Amino acid sequence: MDSTFRRTPKIHLQDLIDGLIGGNRAFLSKAITLVESKRQDDKVQSAELVDKIISTAGKSLRIGITGVPGVGKSTFIEAFGIQLTKLGKKVAVLSIDPSSNRTKGSILGDKTRMDQLSRDPNAFIRPSASGSSLGGVASNTREAILLCEAAGFDIIIIETVGVGQSETIVKDMVDYFLLLMLAGGGDELQGIKRGIMEMADHILINKADKENINAAKRSREDYKNAVHLFPPNEANWTVPVDLCSSLENEGILDAWKKIEMYQQQVVENGWFMKNRSKQSLKWFHERIQTRLESNFYSQPKIHEEIKKRELLISEQQISVRKAVDELFNF
Amino acid sequence: MDSTFRRTPKIHLQDLIDGLIGGNRAFLSKAITLVESKRQDDKVQSAELVDKIISTAGKSLRIGITGVPGVGKSTFIEAFGIQLTKLGKKVAVLSIDPSSNRTKGSILGDKTRMDQLSRDPNAFIRPSASGSSLGGVASNTREAILLCEAAGFDIIIIETVGVGQSETIVKDMVDYFLLLMLAGGGDELQGIKRGIMEMADHILINKADKENINAAKRSREDYKNAVHLFPPNEANWTVPVDLCSSLENEGILDAWKKIEMYQQQVVENGWFMKNRSKQSLKWFHERIQTRLESNFYSQPKIHEEIKKRELLISEQQISVRKAVDELFNF
Repeated sequence: MDSTFRRTPKIHLQDLIDGLIGGNRAFLSKAITLVESKRQDDKVQSAELVDKIISTAGKSLRIGITGVPGVGKSTFIEAFGIQLTKLGKKVAVLSIDPSSNRTKGSILGDKTRMDQLSRDPNAFIRPSASGSSLGGVASNTREAILLCEAAGFDIIIIETVGVGQSETIVKDMVDYFLLLMLAGGGDELQGIKRGIMEMADHILINKADKENINAAKRSREDYKNAVHLFPPNEANWTVPVDLCSSLENEGILDAWKKIEMYQQQVVENGWFMKNRSKQSLKWFHERIQTRLESNFYSQPKIHEEIKKRELLISEQQISVRKAVDELFNF
Repeated sequence: MDSTFRRTPKIHLQDLIDGLIGGNRAFLSKAITLVESKRQDDKVQSAELVDKIISTAGKSLRIGITGVPGVGKSTFIEAFGIQLTKLGKKVAVLSIDPSSNRTKGSILGDKTRMDQLSRDPNAFIRPSASGSSLGGVASNTREAILLCEAAGFDIIIIETVGVGQSETIVKDMVDYFLLLMLAGGGDELQGIKRGIMEMADHILINKADKENINAAKRSREDYKNAVHLFPPNEANWTVPVDLCSSLENEGILDAWKKIEMYQQQVVENGWFMKNRSKQSLKWFHERIQTRLESNFYSQPKIHEEIKKRELLISEQQISVRKAVDELFNF
């Protein structure tokens, strides 16, 4: 934890904030790295940083995008992102991938798989946040969103893989949740978890091109029927089921128009701000819980006291209730 | 909280323990009510009670049973329970139903819907544990299991509804998890969450009788194919897919024989004790977490301090990180 281990020399916090607010992507990157840091002195700086930009944050539209591997997420996000920058938007892409961390391979490919978008001066692509727990990753990503917003990005895309528990986490940090699906029969309805379909604000059947087109149209009807059976969402929004082709750039602009319609509707009916507020308060209580646990488990000697009781519990020499009572009175 | 509000006069703890160990069902009921109590003096007694019986507990086989509403859980449990008591076993049935509490209707029907089993002197049926949270309900049910075991019950059945998050909780407290399914096509594969199928140690297609029999046989093949795709479980157990009819009492004894095979295998390969130990330790850490939260939120003035910061967070006047920092230093 010596300062010689730092990758970059220390930067003055106010310079970092100025660069960030000025929209400098290198400073934005540094700021995100700072809030992800586990070093105690970085934590103090992070708190000050996030607190100083909080009043300027929040002005973007946050879009979650998910889908099973193979659905064409990267190609879609590239086509979608380029469409948005053409419309004059500044687009940031963050990702949450619970199955990977920085030492593994897939993340390193983030920029190459969105080659054109990554070279767009109005786009910013950031690999998955690291973290020891999904909760930690989520908290880091939430702060990265705020930093991107402070840097003037209008659209923040949070990408995740449609197979794990990360969807609920992403749903809790975005305004709009887009599910990419593939054409096909009932098999696809099983491949994606039902609960994830119920979370979606939009179902987009990707790769609806060439020989896939008829199957895609049939799937659209199937998914429409499925969506019809779900209880109405809190935004009072009818979930659209549409086709698109990222390769042929078909349906991408239409998808964005639907999202704009959604935004207008939920801003008007109050759901937009209500949802943002609910999300922040949930995050607040999650962080309280994390803090309680880290304070408790970092007490001197607690590790030893816990180990002792774990052994007694395994051997049925003490009840769990009594072990906990003792731990809080030792 | 005056003692005049108590439903039954106080009983001496040692008498309660003696009656319980003696297998008296009325005392077992009283003991479960005691550990479910939220009164401070009852909590002290409960801790002593559970701790005194802990070394005699643990000798049963704990079986979780789930399935969507309409699958015939009650009828199955009645037929299965009667089969077991005929074999000389003492059977306890507990249930976890996150959608209900004691003031609602469904629970009151527990005994009537298992009419014959409830009149069996070797059976004990207890309605759902009450509790303010699913975690609280789970902890109460775990202690109820220990009490049933101390009272000499050989088989503890934990029943739950196959639609919510209660399955994970039940899976974490049983040795064997049995999933009841219905005959039919692909629709049923979607009705039950995929994750629940992956948890099952046994899939039993119920109502495999009369005009259902051919559909049930086809379903058995479908489920076998599905099970085949899942990763192997930690018990190194090949999940059987069988047919049964609770009404015609077909396949019930066979199901029990499979469970005995499982028990023999996992006792021999060590998974039985390893799993029990893992479950207890997980429960230990869950109770630590619950205690941390209840201690924190019950501090004087904390409610006020939280409300103040919730307002500031909603108005984006303070970052979540800073609000939490302040809360822990106020």
